Amino acid sequence: MTPTESELEALREAISRAREAAGSGPLAGISAAVVGPEGAVAFGTNEVHANCDATRHAEIVALSRAGAALGAADLSGHTLISTLQPCEMCLAAMRFSGIQRLLFAARKENVAGKYFMFPSLTLEDYRAASGEGFAYLGGVMEEEVLDLYRDGKE
Amino acid sequence: MTPTESELEALREAISRAREAAGSGPLAGISAAVVGPEGAVAFGTNEVHANCDATRHAEIVALSRAGAALGAADLSGHTLISTLQPCEMCLAAMRFSGIQRLLFAARKENVAGKYFMFPSLTLEDYRAASGEGFAYLGGVMEEEVLDLYRDGKE
Repeated sequence: MTPTESELEALREAISRAREAAGSGPLAGISAAVVGPEGAVAFGTNEVHANCDATRHAEIVALSRAGAALGAADLSGHTLISTLQPCEMCLAAMRFSGIQRLLFAARKENVAGKYFMFPSLTLEDYRAASGEGFAYLGGVMEEEVLDLYRDGKE
Repeated sequence: MTPTESELEALREAISRAREAAGSGPLAGISAAVVGPEGAVAFGTNEVHANCDATRHAEIVALSRAGAALGAADLSGHTLISTLQPCEMCLAAMRFSGIQRLLFAARKENVAGKYFMFPSLTLEDYRAASGEGFAYLGGVMEEEVLDLYRDGKE
């Protein structure tokens, strides 16, 4: 998968938002975006502790906001962007949203284990188990965020 | 796993709410609950179409409400209840919430395929891939809801 300029721009912006969140409190700083043909339609940053809600990962927040912005739960044709490889919850949410492209920075093998609930299942396992499949590319701009995800903070 | 009386009571109530949702519109009717030592702390019904948000499955809504009710994202010691076997998103959300007990009615093999995004992965696969594991029991009161989930409506 070759990222488009809009996708790379959204990843750059997500990294900037993640670093800002990390700098303003005890959070790791995790940010995500949904990108459509015209560019980013929504961003989200992890809200688990802000909302006492384990489901409010950055990707879930971004998918929710994109649905609200577009007035549709179906985000087919869009790309999910994240500063960190999406967990299993967010990966399934991406597919329920109809999204088949995923671009992220930090890869699972280079971050703390606690970001994943079913650690022995890989992105390749999920792609193989997925009816329609999806394309993904991880490790892009990875060095810019790896220090955020060493300890497993959210 | 042997369900407790509180868990069975919450499942009965969830089934009642699912049938009510199914009767009031074009939705299948899917309901979920979070049960603690003192009984149910939250219920949720699928809000995907109501909110244009593919992430608002019944279980996600129930987990969000339980976190808000208890003022904590960590729901360790609680049980997730659903009228339908939780999808991969909701199963991972359950584990991110610290929940290790799951009780549900309709089983994947008896409902439409579109409720699952990675259909060849089973609950046993997820349990085996999960660090801490979890207990589950499906098929309880199943006959009372199977007609709701034949067509894959939400």
